[in-house]
Amino acid sequence: MLDALFRPRAVAVIGASNRRLTIGYRIVENLVDSGFKGPIFPINPKAPYIKNFIAYKDILDVPLEVDLAHIIVKNTRVPGEIEKCGKKGIKVVIVNTAGFGEIGEEGVKLQEEMLAVAKKYGVRVFGPNCQGVMNSDPEVRAYCNFTFTSMIEGAISVMAQSGGVGEVINNRLYELGLGFRMYASYGNQADINATEILEYWGNDPGTRVILLHIETLQDPAGFARVAKEITKRKPILAMKTGRTKLGAKAVSSHTGGMMAVDTTTNLLLEKCGILTFTDEEELCQAARALAQLPVAEGNRVGIITNTGGPGIIVTDELTERGCDLSEISQASRDSLQGNLYPEASLANPIDVLATATPEHYKLAAATLMSDPGVDIVFVNFITPFFVDTEGVARALTEVAKDAAKPMVACVMTEKKGWQKTLQIFNVGGIPTFDMPEMAGKVAAAIARYGALQRRQESSPVSYNGVDTAAANQLIEKTKASGRAFMAQADAFSLLAAYGLPVPAYGEISDCAGALAAAAEIGYPVTIKVESEDVVHKSDAGGVALNIKDDAELTAACEKMGQNFPGASCFIQKFLDPGIEVMVGANRETEGLGHVVAFGLGGIFVEVMKDVVFRLNPLAADDIDEMIHGIKGFPILEGIRGRAGGDIEKLKEVVSRISMLLRNHDEIEEMDLNPIFSYPEGREPGLVDVRIKLKI
Amino acid sequence: MLDALFRPRAVAVIGASNRRLTIGYRIVENLVDSGFKGPIFPINPKAPYIKNFIAYKDILDVPLEVDLAHIIVKNTRVPGEIEKCGKKGIKVVIVNTAGFGEIGEEGVKLQEEMLAVAKKYGVRVFGPNCQGVMNSDPEVRAYCNFTFTSMIEGAISVMAQSGGVGEVINNRLYELGLGFRMYASYGNQADINATEILEYWGNDPGTRVILLHIETLQDPAGFARVAKEITKRKPILAMKTGRTKLGAKAVSSHTGGMMAVDTTTNLLLEKCGILTFTDEEELCQAARALAQLPVAEGNRVGIITNTGGPGIIVTDELTERGCDLSEISQASRDSLQGNLYPEASLANPIDVLATATPEHYKLAAATLMSDPGVDIVFVNFITPFFVDTEGVARALTEVAKDAAKPMVACVMTEKKGWQKTLQIFNVGGIPTFDMPEMAGKVAAAIARYGALQRRQESSPVSYNGVDTAAANQLIEKTKASGRAFMAQADAFSLLAAYGLPVPAYGEISDCAGALAAAAEIGYPVTIKVESEDVVHKSDAGGVALNIKDDAELTAACEKMGQNFPGASCFIQKFLDPGIEVMVGANRETEGLGHVVAFGLGGIFVEVMKDVVFRLNPLAADDIDEMIHGIKGFPILEGIRGRAGGDIEKLKEVVSRISMLLRNHDEIEEMDLNPIFSYPEGREPGLVDVRIKLKI
Repeated sequence: MLDALFRPRAVAVIGASNRRLTIGYRIVENLVDSGFKGPIFPINPKAPYIKNFIAYKDILDVPLEVDLAHIIVKNTRVPGEIEKCGKKGIKVVIVNTAGFGEIGEEGVKLQEEMLAVAKKYGVRVFGPNCQGVMNSDPEVRAYCNFTFTSMIEGAISVMAQSGGVGEVINNRLYELGLGFRMYASYGNQADINATEILEYWGNDPGTRVILLHIETLQDPAGFARVAKEITKRKPILAMKTGRTKLGAKAVSSHTGGMMAVDTTTNLLLEKCGILTFTDEEELCQAARALAQLPVAEGNRVGIITNTGGPGIIVTDELTERGCDLSEISQASRDSLQGNLYPEASLANPIDVLATATPEHYKLAAATLMSDPGVDIVFVNFITPFFVDTEGVARALTEVAKDAAKPMVACVMTEKKGWQKTLQIFNVGGIPTFDMPEMAGKVAAAIARYGALQRRQESSPVSYNGVDTAAANQLIEKTKASGRAFMAQADAFSLLAAYGLPVPAYGEISDCAGALAAAAEIGYPVTIKVESEDVVHKSDAGGVALNIKDDAELTAACEKMGQNFPGASCFIQKFLDPGIEVMVGANRETEGLGHVVAFGLGGIFVEVMKDVVFRLNPLAADDIDEMIHGIKGFPILEGIRGRAGGDIEKLKEVVSRISMLLRNHDEIEEMDLNPIFSYPEGREPGLVDVRIKLKI
Repeated sequence: MLDALFRPRAVAVIGASNRRLTIGYRIVENLVDSGFKGPIFPINPKAPYIKNFIAYKDILDVPLEVDLAHIIVKNTRVPGEIEKCGKKGIKVVIVNTAGFGEIGEEGVKLQEEMLAVAKKYGVRVFGPNCQGVMNSDPEVRAYCNFTFTSMIEGAISVMAQSGGVGEVINNRLYELGLGFRMYASYGNQADINATEILEYWGNDPGTRVILLHIETLQDPAGFARVAKEITKRKPILAMKTGRTKLGAKAVSSHTGGMMAVDTTTNLLLEKCGILTFTDEEELCQAARALAQLPVAEGNRVGIITNTGGPGIIVTDELTERGCDLSEISQASRDSLQGNLYPEASLANPIDVLATATPEHYKLAAATLMSDPGVDIVFVNFITPFFVDTEGVARALTEVAKDAAKPMVACVMTEKKGWQKTLQIFNVGGIPTFDMPEMAGKVAAAIARYGALQRRQESSPVSYNGVDTAAANQLIEKTKASGRAFMAQADAFSLLAAYGLPVPAYGEISDCAGALAAAAEIGYPVTIKVESEDVVHKSDAGGVALNIKDDAELTAACEKMGQNFPGASCFIQKFLDPGIEVMVGANRETEGLGHVVAFGLGGIFVEVMKDVVFRLNPLAADDIDEMIHGIKGFPILEGIRGRAGGDIEKLKEVVSRISMLLRNHDEIEEMDLNPIFSYPEGREPGLVDVRIKLKI
């Protein structure tokens, strides 16, 4: 439990100072200014008092019980201070001091030493090299941090790997009048880490929305376990920075981590039902909306507007971000017809005209709320001076109150003159936005959040008739042989054990064997050399395709024998080419599922980068979105009179692959490229596979 | 000259009212509140006074000279009022009243009647169905508009097709403390149109930047002529709304125009050197920067930061938007080494650390300013309480002052506490932004603006040896025949006249002729039926490819004769396939050049939409950007050991096509698909062409 950290009854500041421009002064000042509810104990061996407080020479001199202590002294002195904290019975220390794990070997040693002392006394450590925490709960009011944002009570808790980013977010939430519930910027996470804090906030009734800034995840698997549970109850919104190659480089030089564009983290976040963003402003604005609105059941938006131009902007934003504009039902039109101005437009956007009355808005909003084709109600409202804008705001809040669908409003106004109008909206539970673009982005985020919530409910399919025993045996066999790559025949047998459609095949060691196998399989056949060394088999002459009869086969076997003396070969039924598709899988992070890639093969993946990634396990929704998500999808549907593929059968292939991967964590990489997709009714053909095991 | 509109010495309000919630009251009030520098004359037949002013029954009763009159009376009474304005000698009327061209036939008639009266008296009309204009020049202070934004003096003039969008922009500029210079929202543009206003602002020394909101351009060619001249002197920034299919539909239902996603307008805007945006916030923020900064000479950004996390965000934004991060030169490193904190990072971003002093910032900024690898200096500054932030601001403004490179700053702070620091930045000519994302977007906009400025200097190539006489003759021949599509042989002759590489060809009418032609051309050959009706020739059996000898040719001719009795045919040298490329051209707007498309052929264009459009004429820079701009460009460079195309030769092909199009405005559509691109040294082959003339 992190109560001692976030709800301390008394706070000590070890290294407190009277010099205004020091962290040791600032923390004392912030605690006072924010109205901390308990006693504050500055510790300083020389000063008789700090600010208005008596200063104690030593933490052990403090006469009352203390839950939490800041430590701001020189890094080498930190373990000693923690020892004293332990003796004093302090439960948590925030080590603001830097110069630990982040500076290399020497610092790592010091960090370990510090942790050993802390462990001995059961003291939990937050940091080191960190800002601290805050809690705006009126019962606590703990500003255990040296930053500058004014603390106002709010329902959004913010955790930031970068204190700078955290401060930008906090400050923006303050400007928006939202404030925050709790805040944490945890530095090196030597002991208390992001996952533990997340779990704590998941159980905090005052936290309605959680915002995360992430550069790298320390413990992805643990994080995922906790996050998945929380998103069932409250929204988590996250921003992972370093998404470009240069951005990732900046992360690595900043955190000392590996330099690589990290795609897994965002996949993981989405997998946990976390809504991801690439913009702090959008993150803050979406948090405002999601803190108070019901979940959208779909992506269809009904718009009410009193101004044409901004209505167009909203339409552009929404459709570009995957929302649809609702078809207004006939019943809705009937209810509006004759009750708005005659010149009003009843299409979507519903243009009620600049002079529309509160009754017009109320009718239009109520109509959209009850229209089954509408999932989100969007009000686009410029405040004309000749309209009772407060009446409009009141009318809309009456509709929004207790409604099952979210309503957002773009209120374009001069904020001082129309302060009262804005207040009615906001108190009435309708989040407002200044500009149509941002309002559109937020509405789209609400729709995405609804989709994520629905996806959480769908689970991966398990197929009957899968021969897991055979599959395990094949993998064990490869492992026992000390090879990383499975032999062709074993790999295909593994696929077959999962009911995947593989062409008939066999292992062959000489020409006679090949002829016998071909007799069984039936021509045409393909032979491939079996060799771990030959990665690009075709280039090296290790593949002979479309062999039509015994004579051709004999010739091919002889040639193969010359090219690869003594190598064994693999024979399979040759399939006529279909639409080429690829499925790849990669285990990138310990404790997480494989990253699965789907795309059309060849240049579509290599040049056009037209590929969709998802984290395994894959539910039907995932697979559907992966296949439909590639730009080249029309090719699978069939274009220019050419036949497409059987998409349902393709989905089943991906789904069975997903099952295979989730049962066999030992698979490090898997490449099915190409898979031939054939017209409706015909099974796809998995003609090439490469499986690498973890050894 | 629009002085009477924007700098009126006296304003009358015909239809003024004492009822507060009317436009007739609001305009009088706005003129008073904004401090209009001349007399105000409310006209009302019944009221003895309006607000603090005597009301005149009739405009003709006004005792002084009047330049400008608002007209707010019922639409049918407008022509009569204009007649009186004419008699009074009024130069311009702003017709706020709606119910003209925008409501259909009846309104169109009324609008024409109104214009006829106005013309008779030489009265210029602004509107109808419009908001009005504003001018914040302290000598004028004319708020001839009924909106709510407070008018503060500024250097940015704003013109908005949608009054709603205009108001959002004005209000935001006000909130940002920027204000505006002049404003216009012109409604139906019955007389005074956007182009004329643009020209006026181009010559207004008080206007440093022009912002445009556009839904549709009334007179694209005239607009382009004027805009091109202005962008040589001052930046124009524009936002064209209705960019999605549904957005375009909303524009059409709003303006009554055609529903089509309008791609030409944005191409035209860029062609004129106008920077385009899709977000009002970004538009306003970029205007702030471009109003005061020198033009960037490239896209390489040098970053100074005192916080890691936001530095990563900036890096992500910049690189995603086409900027590069500068390589910091050795000379620069040398000048920094030893003069910043030892832990400071000298890579880009240069991390001066949170505790950096004003001297550190000054050195770092001056170093980047003089580093030849840096085009834009970006300062990422969170304001730590323990730093002399005002000193930092002063140090940076000293460097920025008179510097030849733009400097922007992301200043992350609590605005009230650090007001003075922000003020030092802004008064010192360094635009500041609250968040790293927006600051990054603006820096990228500055780079794009620099690129646009440089592109304005490059002009299209004219080739010697082009046989324009022959080309004209071929076009005249087709026109005379009454056909829209040029015959194959004529079309290829036209290409040949422009020195374009076409395979040898001829027209044939029978088998004997075919054999004779083939003998001259040399096998293999292709024959195609000549028929305007057969659009998809190959599907109908109208094309025979790769004919290798006389026997095959005879057979092909016979078959063609059966399929298309009596039709004449076209024969050409068959070329072995290269990398397929396509160039298309379309005249979409009268008075403008063709829209030219470049892409790889087939599914790359049809499914992947991997195509770049530009407006003709094309300079070398344009062509370079088009060819490099497709996602499939690596295919042209050569991938997986396969040869690429000769890109220089391809550029010349596009350049010659551009010349052809600019000389022959009669061409309505042209399709060169495929063009075969071959490995280095070999001329591309234009094997198929379709040219449609305007008839």
